[in-house]
Amino acid sequence: MQRKSYPISQTILTDLAKVDTALKEELHRYNGALQEAASLTVKAGGKRLRPALVLICGQAGRYDLSKLMPAALAVELLHTATLVHDDVLDVNPLRRGLETVNARWGSKTAIATGDMLLGKSFSLMSGSMSPEAVKVLAEAALDLSAGEMMQQRSVREPDTGVDEYLERVRLKTAVLFKASCFLGVSVSGADTMTAEALGRYGEHLGMAFQIFDDVLDIVADEEILGKPVGGDLRDGTPTYPVISALGKNGSDVLHKIMTCEEPDELDVQASLGFIKQCGAIEESRELAKSYIDKSYTVIEEISNKGLKQELRDVGQFVIDRYN
Amino acid sequence: MQRKSYPISQTILTDLAKVDTALKEELHRYNGALQEAASLTVKAGGKRLRPALVLICGQAGRYDLSKLMPAALAVELLHTATLVHDDVLDVNPLRRGLETVNARWGSKTAIATGDMLLGKSFSLMSGSMSPEAVKVLAEAALDLSAGEMMQQRSVREPDTGVDEYLERVRLKTAVLFKASCFLGVSVSGADTMTAEALGRYGEHLGMAFQIFDDVLDIVADEEILGKPVGGDLRDGTPTYPVISALGKNGSDVLHKIMTCEEPDELDVQASLGFIKQCGAIEESRELAKSYIDKSYTVIEEISNKGLKQELRDVGQFVIDRYN
Repeated sequence: MQRKSYPISQTILTDLAKVDTALKEELHRYNGALQEAASLTVKAGGKRLRPALVLICGQAGRYDLSKLMPAALAVELLHTATLVHDDVLDVNPLRRGLETVNARWGSKTAIATGDMLLGKSFSLMSGSMSPEAVKVLAEAALDLSAGEMMQQRSVREPDTGVDEYLERVRLKTAVLFKASCFLGVSVSGADTMTAEALGRYGEHLGMAFQIFDDVLDIVADEEILGKPVGGDLRDGTPTYPVISALGKNGSDVLHKIMTCEEPDELDVQASLGFIKQCGAIEESRELAKSYIDKSYTVIEEISNKGLKQELRDVGQFVIDRYN
Repeated sequence: MQRKSYPISQTILTDLAKVDTALKEELHRYNGALQEAASLTVKAGGKRLRPALVLICGQAGRYDLSKLMPAALAVELLHTATLVHDDVLDVNPLRRGLETVNARWGSKTAIATGDMLLGKSFSLMSGSMSPEAVKVLAEAALDLSAGEMMQQRSVREPDTGVDEYLERVRLKTAVLFKASCFLGVSVSGADTMTAEALGRYGEHLGMAFQIFDDVLDIVADEEILGKPVGGDLRDGTPTYPVISALGKNGSDVLHKIMTCEEPDELDVQASLGFIKQCGAIEESRELAKSYIDKSYTVIEEISNKGLKQELRDVGQFVIDRYN
C-alpha cells in the first residue's frame, strides 16, 4: 500500500506548494506556544486537499493565485482548527504520525489553538473577499461544529442508522469540500451556475472522501495512516463499514465493543478481521464510488474539458488514494 | 452588596431587551444538544455589556437598531463562545449561577458548542456588514484566543509581572470591548475619528472592567457572583490583586497556594483574608479607576453631550457595579 500522487496539473501543484509555504508563514507571525502549537498541526500537513480544490476550481474563470490564496489558506486553517478541537480529550496521541497539540500541551492549549486558527481563517477571508464568500465559510464552520456534535451523540450507539451517518459525513466533511470548490469558482469570477455545480461536485466528493477514510481506518497500514488502525472502533464511532458489519451474522463481538467504554484489544482485532471478511468493506467502497459517480454527473455540463478531466481525476484519486 | 442597574437610557435598555430576545431566537433554530447547550449558556446571560456598547456607540451617527442588531448579536455570541471554551476542563461547574455546558454535557460538547457560537457570530456579521467590520471581529477573536493562551501559561506562575497581566487583560477582555464600540460607531455611519476614539474608550473600559472583575473574584458575595469566590486562587491564575498581594510582607501562604495544584481550602480562605487586608484590593480599584480616567480623556472631543455623559456613566458603573 503506497500513497498515490495527486492527479493534478503541474501549475496547480506548484501553486499548492506556495499555499503550503504561505500557511506556515502566516503562523510564524505568532509568538510562543500558540505559534508552536499551530505550526505542529499545520506541519503535520496531510494532503491539502481543500486548498487544492480551491485552486483547481479557480480555473473555472480567470485563474489568479493571488486572489485564490486567501480562500485556499482560510479553508485549510478552518479544517486544521477542527482537527485540533477534535483531538482534544482523545486518547490517541498521534495525528498523521505526529504528536497532537492536545498530547503535547494539554487540552486548554489545544482549544485556544483551534480558536486561533478559526479566527485567523476568518480574518484572512474578511480581509480579502466579499461578505457572501465569508458567509459561505462561516456557514461551513457552523456545519462542522454541528457535525462534531452529531458524532459525539452517536458514540457507542451501534443502532446509528445509515441516514444519520451520511448526514454526519455531510456536516463534518462534505460541506467544507463544497465550500472550497464554491469559493474557488467565485473568486475566479465564473458564473453562479458553474459555482453551484462545482459546489455540488465538492459535496459529493467530500462524501466519498470521508466514507473512504472510514474504510482506511480499518484496512490501512498504520505507517501510512499515521495512527493505529481501528481508532473508530476503540472510540465507539459507528462509521459506514461498522454499521454495515453490524447488520451481518456473527457481529456479536463487534456489537460488544461498540457499546464498551474500554474494549478489549483482542476483541478489537477480532472485529477488524470480521469487518474485513464480512463484505462491509466492499459495500463501503461501493457507497463511496456511488458518490464519485454523482460528482461526475453534476460536472457533465462544464464546458472546460481540461478542468472537467482534472475534476474526474481527483474523484478517482479520492476513492483510490492508496493502491 | 447589590447589583446596580444600568445607567443607560430607556431607548437603549428597550433595544437591549430586543437583542436578548433575538439572541435566544437565533439559537432556537438549532436542534438537539447543540441548541440546548448554546441556550443554557446564553440564558445564563450576564450583563450583555458588549451589545450594550454596540447600541450606545451606535448613537454616534444615525442610530438604527436593525443595522446595529447583527453586530450586537455577533459580539455577544463571540463572547459566549469564549466563555464556553474557557469552562472546558474547569473544575467549577457553575457560571453565573447556572451549570456550565462542560459540567452538564462534557468537554467535547462544550468545544463543539463554542465552535458553533463562533461560526454563528461570523455568519451574522458577514451576512450584514462590510468586510472591514468582519475583520475587526475576526481580529478580536484571534486576540481572545491569544489571551486565553497567555492565561494558561501564567497559571501557577506567581512571578507573573504586571505588564504581562495587563497584556493578558487587553487580549482577553479589552479587545472585544474595543471592537463592540468601534462596530457600533461604524454601523451608525459616524466618521472614522469618532470610531477610533470610541474604540479606545472601549479598550480602556474593558481594562477597568476586567481588573474590577478580578477584584470581585475575591471580595464579592458568592450569591451575586454566581460561583464561589476565590476561583482564581484555586486555579492558580495570577490576577492583579494577587500579584499586588504577593509583593507584600506575609504573603507566604498565598505564594504557597499559587504554586500548588490542589491548594488546601483553609490556605485559600487565609489568602483571601490576606489579600483583603494588605491593601491589594484598594490598589486594584485604583488601577481600574485609572483606566476609567483614560476612557474619559479619549472621549473629551465627542460633541454629542448626551452620548458623552452616557459613556461616562457606563465607565462609573463598570468600576462600581456592586455597592
